[in-house]
Amino acid sequence: MRIAELSRRSGVPVPTIKYYMREGLVPQGERTSPNQANYDESHLRRLRLARALVDVGGLPVAVAHDVLQMLDDRRSNLHDLLGKAQYAATPRRETDTDTEEWRQAEEDVRTLIAERGWVIRPGGPALLSLTETIALLRRLGQDSYLKLLGGYADAAERVANEEVAHVVAQPDIESMAEVVVVGTVLGDALLAALRRLAQESASSRLAQEPVPDGSSR
Amino acid sequence: MRIAELSRRSGVPVPTIKYYMREGLVPQGERTSPNQANYDESHLRRLRLARALVDVGGLPVAVAHDVLQMLDDRRSNLHDLLGKAQYAATPRRETDTDTEEWRQAEEDVRTLIAERGWVIRPGGPALLSLTETIALLRRLGQDSYLKLLGGYADAAERVANEEVAHVVAQPDIESMAEVVVVGTVLGDALLAALRRLAQESASSRLAQEPVPDGSSR
Repeated sequence: MRIAELSRRSGVPVPTIKYYMREGLVPQGERTSPNQANYDESHLRRLRLARALVDVGGLPVAVAHDVLQMLDDRRSNLHDLLGKAQYAATPRRETDTDTEEWRQAEEDVRTLIAERGWVIRPGGPALLSLTETIALLRRLGQDSYLKLLGGYADAAERVANEEVAHVVAQPDIESMAEVVVVGTVLGDALLAALRRLAQESASSRLAQEPVPDGSSR
Repeated sequence: MRIAELSRRSGVPVPTIKYYMREGLVPQGERTSPNQANYDESHLRRLRLARALVDVGGLPVAVAHDVLQMLDDRRSNLHDLLGKAQYAATPRRETDTDTEEWRQAEEDVRTLIAERGWVIRPGGPALLSLTETIALLRRLGQDSYLKLLGGYADAAERVANEEVAHVVAQPDIESMAEVVVVGTVLGDALLAALRRLAQESASSRLAQEPVPDGSSR
């Protein structure tokens, strides 16, 4: 197909497609003349995925590029794939790690991982992100929020086990890699939306009760 | 305290504090002279929260302003508070809703909500975000990923019930509102990080198994 049809079928404007190709998110088409190229279903599929990572996943184009590179690396195993997707798709921030809250948070995370018997490489972005979020909760005086951590970890474990089983059930490496990429990025969006809906439903049961004012409780 | 001490204790640079005050995220101090103002612990507390919403929550300053406004509204009940925090903190995108995938996704969401007996107002941002993510999965050919939706919803329900109970257990409206704001934004970060760690642990059990290449399965 020509680029116009690729645009129509993907819903991605032609200039954006050209930009993605220049940035290596989508492979070039097969040149048929100096001004024309042909594209096939594999271009369409990759283009939709690139668009999803950038638009819904909110990944910067350079990060989406790194994630999509994985799809072309046939020598990975599942564990490598997951690790690479996570490294690429987990935000990293500059954090002040020389604080009392950070040291407490590191201890919280160590305890949590030991209690659950999780096998985790040190220094990964999810580990840092968890430590940072806990340190911040402590810094905000929300230490009591950490009571909920066990329930969050149970929920995460349940979801992760099903996700990994779903990846393993894929018929080939391309499909596995695609599910890992999609699941890493869109799984966050699914879980966040469902959590909000479940909160809304749980709180609607309490909706008639007015919140007490500061002095009465 | 003076602004310099506020900066030191919060870790937020003085120009950023002044910017937050101009944008209404943090209340002005009490003027003691034309060039000086006094701040108390309530300023420090609000400043840390504002910083968390912008830095970790990734909220635009105008959105963080809307969320923080809730903290000053004493007449809310818990359900209103949650609704407002969700509206403010859930990203909205332009989406093409006139597609077959969108209609299927709407049906998926209706079925899910009915099966779980959730009470959800129509048109909310989390509902749109869920519909959009499901439509996108369908568009990406990942229909089989939707098998995992029930497990995601179980996990979300469990977490949400504990969160709402934790909010209700707060002693006053200010504390409730603060927990809602913190929980909405930082809860996503906690759950995302824990999901990645649980995935890493689940996949490490399979790490020795090479992924089959495309032709062998």
